[in-house]
Amino acid sequence: MVVSVFLEAARRRPVPRTPVWFMRQAGRYMAEYRAIRSRHSLLEICARPELAAEVTLQPVERLGVDAAILFSDILLPVVPMGLDLEFAAGEGPVIRNPVKDAGDIARLRPVDVEESLASVLETVRLVRGALDGRTPLLGFAGAPFTLASYVVEGGASRSFVKVKRLLYGDPGSWHALLEKLARVIGDLLLAQVRAGAQALQVFDSWVGALSPEDYRSYVLPHSRALFERLASAGVPTIHFGVGTATLLELLREAGGDVIGVDWRIPLDAAWERVGHDRAIQGNLDPAALFAPREELERRVRVILDRAGGRPGHIFNLGHGILPETPVESVRAVVDLVHAHGSGP
Amino acid sequence: MVVSVFLEAARRRPVPRTPVWFMRQAGRYMAEYRAIRSRHSLLEICARPELAAEVTLQPVERLGVDAAILFSDILLPVVPMGLDLEFAAGEGPVIRNPVKDAGDIARLRPVDVEESLASVLETVRLVRGALDGRTPLLGFAGAPFTLASYVVEGGASRSFVKVKRLLYGDPGSWHALLEKLARVIGDLLLAQVRAGAQALQVFDSWVGALSPEDYRSYVLPHSRALFERLASAGVPTIHFGVGTATLLELLREAGGDVIGVDWRIPLDAAWERVGHDRAIQGNLDPAALFAPREELERRVRVILDRAGGRPGHIFNLGHGILPETPVESVRAVVDLVHAHGSGP
Repeated sequence: MVVSVFLEAARRRPVPRTPVWFMRQAGRYMAEYRAIRSRHSLLEICARPELAAEVTLQPVERLGVDAAILFSDILLPVVPMGLDLEFAAGEGPVIRNPVKDAGDIARLRPVDVEESLASVLETVRLVRGALDGRTPLLGFAGAPFTLASYVVEGGASRSFVKVKRLLYGDPGSWHALLEKLARVIGDLLLAQVRAGAQALQVFDSWVGALSPEDYRSYVLPHSRALFERLASAGVPTIHFGVGTATLLELLREAGGDVIGVDWRIPLDAAWERVGHDRAIQGNLDPAALFAPREELERRVRVILDRAGGRPGHIFNLGHGILPETPVESVRAVVDLVHAHGSGP
Repeated sequence: MVVSVFLEAARRRPVPRTPVWFMRQAGRYMAEYRAIRSRHSLLEICARPELAAEVTLQPVERLGVDAAILFSDILLPVVPMGLDLEFAAGEGPVIRNPVKDAGDIARLRPVDVEESLASVLETVRLVRGALDGRTPLLGFAGAPFTLASYVVEGGASRSFVKVKRLLYGDPGSWHALLEKLARVIGDLLLAQVRAGAQALQVFDSWVGALSPEDYRSYVLPHSRALFERLASAGVPTIHFGVGTATLLELLREAGGDVIGVDWRIPLDAAWERVGHDRAIQGNLDPAALFAPREELERRVRVILDRAGGRPGHIFNLGHGILPETPVESVRAVVDLVHAHGSGP
């Protein structure tokens, strides 16, 4: 088995070059992916392990990234809990029966992930087999808050007012909801590791909507319990969110061997706040992939310089690849990060 | 003329109690406003000074806030520049002919604000006359970046990828666009002061989408030129943005006697970063207005405590009032801030 620069960096061990992968590296910006999506819906791909595995492997082959990430959707676990999930054209995810109150939360069903999410776990096994140790496979799930935000809002939100109304007005129910979600998320992530995932990323994408005080009261205990449970799996964990400049110390407190940061804070300033006893992932603006090559390369170098060759930097974007991104730009970033190196 | 706690606080002079007003204090959450909106479109209200003045005055009468803010829309100035603005139902503002390139920017027309935006200025005169010195009147406009974001994206955006593509790919055109916008914005704000506005707020609402480095290169010079020009008017200026925790030092550098901050950073931490030689405005989460009364009041007190009675705090939300906000909650905040006091 080849030593993985990604897994080594996640453990803050010195590596000969900085590892790089991309959130949403399997996606619409890639012709191979669009070819499959033209024949199958997102949920169909997730439900069919051979398709999900193919999509997972596409960017590994095309881009030469240092990690594969399971192709799946953070909302899949809420379906067996009893929620009606749809991906409406142009609307993103929609939950037709969102959670409104204590009664709805009480009705959420426990989930046997090995049974209800068997296709996700089978995808992990297929990908792990196909990669054969050449590239590590990252499993993932949504964090309790971010899943709760979809479940309560019924889809994406700008103001998160329904979520906040619930947590301010009925904190007991809010905590019950996050406990239920954290249980399923933890079960799913541990099952992914048993199926072959070699690292795990927890996406708390929308947590930047909260003040530090609200994060501490309403989210941190659940994320911490989740990361404590994941520690038993013995694989590195990544804790990611967007707009978290004022939450970084709290994300660290909640857990994760690696903290993922967006572009709103310089990488060195973020690492300082997180603490150098954790690894860091980030933090190129996904929009920079639309810049002319020279400007893109300058931005990549700025981030590598800010990491300063310190062990524990994983190069990534600050959020997922955007749909119309030129694939050559993504490839150029991989090549530049690989050429730059971080070791002696 | 009564001494205004709002105007005094904006100049960091000691006041007997903390002033309070709300962004979007004239809006759908208020029955009086909905009654007018049921008969007139947003653009109609803006175009008819007697209606716009009535809407401006409603929250002053109903809530007892310490400042009136002109009822208008930040996008009005782009119409005489040659852009087709519509408010599509449920979609927010839509510009049918967004700016794509240098040619489109060159075609943007200069604006004589006294002629093309006469209704806005007439509203200022009507409101100022009606208030008769009892409550000060705040004029406003969008900042160059935030206006450019609508003009280039054609409406609201999450990724701002068209904006960033333009500024990374064709910085010369980007700067030309921001100069044109800043010119019209400055003309409009100075005309508002001549018409009677006693303070000005510049809304750079979406600037939190940028990294500090991008803000410095692509936005700061234009915002600074605008604030330098406004200084000649001799009225206090407020510089507001959302998600600006990592931009506060730069917003300060760009200008504004008062810096407006959202709820993602504690007020005392924000003021520390801004510097105590500027006043600060904020920073209640608009969603807190949906909390039970006791919890809402606790949150208001936390902010007042963090301001610590230091001269120069204007109580406000971290963003605009949300449409379904209970009006009693808004009223309760005014009463609590007034009862709390900040002076001896």
